[in-house]
Amino acid sequence: MFLIKRKVSFSAAHRLYSDALSDEENRAVYGKCSNPNYHGHNFSLEVAVKGEPDPRTGMVINFKTLGEILEREVVEQLDHRNLNLEVDWLRGVVPTAENLVRAIWEILESKIPQGRLHSLTLSETESSSVTYFGPHGGTT
Amino acid sequence: MFLIKRKVSFSAAHRLYSDALSDEENRAVYGKCSNPNYHGHNFSLEVAVKGEPDPRTGMVINFKTLGEILEREVVEQLDHRNLNLEVDWLRGVVPTAENLVRAIWEILESKIPQGRLHSLTLSETESSSVTYFGPHGGTT
Amino acid sequence: MFLIKRKVSFSAAHRLYSDALSDEENRAVYGKCSNPNYHGHNFSLEVAVKGEPDPRTGMVINFKTLGEILEREVVEQLDHRNLNLEVDWLRGVVPTAENLVRAIWEILESKIPQGRLHSLTLSETESSSVTYFGPHGGTT
Amino acid sequence: MFLIKRKVSFSAAHRLYSDALSDEENRAVYGKCSNPNYHGHNFSLEVAVKGEPDPRTGMVINFKTLGEILEREVVEQLDHRNLNLEVDWLRGVVPTAENLVRAIWEILESKIPQGRLHSLTLSETESSSVTYFGPHGGTT
Amino acid sequence: MFLIKRKVSFSAAHRLYSDALSDEENRAVYGKCSNPNYHGHNFSLEVAVKGEPDPRTGMVINFKTLGEILEREVVEQLDHRNLNLEVDWLRGVVPTAENLVRAIWEILESKIPQGRLHSLTLSETESSSVTYFGPHGGTT
Amino acid sequence: MFLIKRKVSFSAAHRLYSDALSDEENRAVYGKCSNPNYHGHNFSLEVAVKGEPDPRTGMVINFKTLGEILEREVVEQLDHRNLNLEVDWLRGVVPTAENLVRAIWEILESKIPQGRLHSLTLSETESSSVTYFGPHGGTT
Repeated sequence: MFLIKRKVSFSAAHRLYSDALSDEENRAVYGKCSNPNYHGHNFSLEVAVKGEPDPRTGMVINFKTLGEILEREVVEQLDHRNLNLEVDWLRGVVPTAENLVRAIWEILESKIPQGRLHSLTLSETESSSVTYFGPHGGTT
Repeated sequence: MFLIKRKVSFSAAHRLYSDALSDEENRAVYGKCSNPNYHGHNFSLEVAVKGEPDPRTGMVINFKTLGEILEREVVEQLDHRNLNLEVDWLRGVVPTAENLVRAIWEILESKIPQGRLHSLTLSETESSSVTYFGPHGGTT
Repeated sequence: MFLIKRKVSFSAAHRLYSDALSDEENRAVYGKCSNPNYHGHNFSLEVAVKGEPDPRTGMVINFKTLGEILEREVVEQLDHRNLNLEVDWLRGVVPTAENLVRAIWEILESKIPQGRLHSLTLSETESSSVTYFGPHGGTT
Repeated sequence: MFLIKRKVSFSAAHRLYSDALSDEENRAVYGKCSNPNYHGHNFSLEVAVKGEPDPRTGMVINFKTLGEILEREVVEQLDHRNLNLEVDWLRGVVPTAENLVRAIWEILESKIPQGRLHSLTLSETESSSVTYFGPHGGTT
Repeated sequence: MFLIKRKVSFSAAHRLYSDALSDEENRAVYGKCSNPNYHGHNFSLEVAVKGEPDPRTGMVINFKTLGEILEREVVEQLDHRNLNLEVDWLRGVVPTAENLVRAIWEILESKIPQGRLHSLTLSETESSSVTYFGPHGGTT
Repeated sequence: MFLIKRKVSFSAAHRLYSDALSDEENRAVYGKCSNPNYHGHNFSLEVAVKGEPDPRTGMVINFKTLGEILEREVVEQLDHRNLNLEVDWLRGVVPTAENLVRAIWEILESKIPQGRLHSLTLSETESSSVTYFGPHGGTT
């Protein structure tokens, strides 16, 4: 089994605030991440596609194809945007790394033409990231 | 001559918009960086202090001292903030990397207890940065 | 399933020397790593916590909470220390990366308030690391 | 279970061209990677060996031993070489990342003296890599 | 004085071989870099433009403008190419890092619309690079 | 003018303690860096050699030559060593980054066969480094 991995990045603003929580609870849970005027990150997204190489081409999926899908479906949608206000498919979502990566999974899953989406890793900073294996995936 | 360098980072939101320009000019000059709902970055700041080591201690300035100054004067002021709205000493400043680094210079210059501030490098992303040598500094 | 990952680093001295081996065997097994006067590294530790996000907060565990635990339980204990001499919970342990990461697992496992500890990756250098999945974990 | 990881790099030329495809198909499938005059990369290879530490030494396998194997079996064979023309064990292989990593697996598998080869990750660039888990390995 | 820096990368093949030297001398001087079948790198190029920010825009030169120039003048010309055979403005040039960076300077110098080209840093690998300050530039 | 840069790294133990200071002063000045049992780092050293390329070879100095000098004169002397106890040319030197880099300059200066030593950058961690321009060098 092979995993093909490709990384892109986008710069966006967000704040963590849940309507299900009071203002006080929001501050307690999210701290300075709940700043009403937003903050931002250079988010990095690494997608992993699993599969076997096509014997004719020797590839599971072309890095270039994968890069173009990520550019179109993720970077063009999220780069230089406000993740709380400006993205249709994030409406009503508290933009934690966990919720973002699950929403990105739903966007990407059906768009992968060869192989199958295995996992997504979204990094907020060089020291903080979330990996998601999909609704049915996982590791022991 | 020695340069002592220390790096910190902060995550902030900003937008590029100048009152001296029309909305159309703003879009023409700043492109998607002028998005009214902001975007953001993990900014990285590297400070360089120049000087000669104190013969008793063998140091120009302690990395730890330098780090604490940067933490207090820069990171606590800018991290998880909106650079257009929330920082007193950035009021009225279009937060381009050039303007940010000059404003940070003014804040830091008098706070360096040993050696002298030589230059500041502010990175917006891994591939984009500005280095400032101060109002009287420079290189050939 | 989600993995939440957070990275910290610490600078420490160690030497590899086992009382179960003769001096000659120590040199044969550990080479220059057995230097009696110690050497050192900037160790990097990445912790992975697995779980499902709390639907109210959208988080498995807050990056900040996880970071504070790592700071208190690992960095404060190991940073600028001698791993052979100064850490209670490493007494009698040959501080190989394997043994260190297992000892850190025992310290951290019960301290994770949400989700469960999935794996720890300890890097000695940029090109050398060990990942541990716990006494009952593992991958195929 | 432990994974011991070690990284090396090598600089090589290659082109993607399959005799099973027409020239037109080669261009359609591989794009500029099929340039007849070759292009090149700083390839990075990370090997992961799984196992339990020997209780006497506290190591699954010495980083140094692993590094020497990679140097001899991979770097000396591939560094500053043309992967299409100059490597016996790549003859007839279209040097995609997938095919390269599978060929390297076959070379390395029997050479690991302690533990067992778990996976290999070959990066062509900082944003493009392939991980291979061997003919019988894999993840869910 | 400000330096605006922007980084791009390209993957190319080359070999070091000088017609002014015998085959034996070529091998002696360039070692395995003179392999007749080529090798390759992920080259990284960082351009530094010096100037003062325009008071209306707060920028010396837009990162985006600079990036587009580098993309068009350097990346499109050199990426996935053979630097010995396929680039008009490298014809007759032994493609050492020194010679490449000087040739790139000549291409770029007149293309920078604001500020002035200050220096170019070309990296062959993460540990090997050359910085060029132009025919009239330099540092003490 | 060209700068040729090459980077190496070494893992060593040290402590900061000056005989010219009392124990109390040592703790006040050096903090946890004065731990009597040592701590350590993966030090990284980047050397910059300045010069003009030889027109016959197109090189100021071969990266390989420079790397071999650094390996022999620096890495073999300092790697896996205790910088307070084991290095002849560091005897009596408080091993601050400033003092280390000056001592390394004295070792290297006469060993560079082509071009001239321009500067040395020694990093203790990814965020802390010192650049030295030699006893007669410097920047404005």
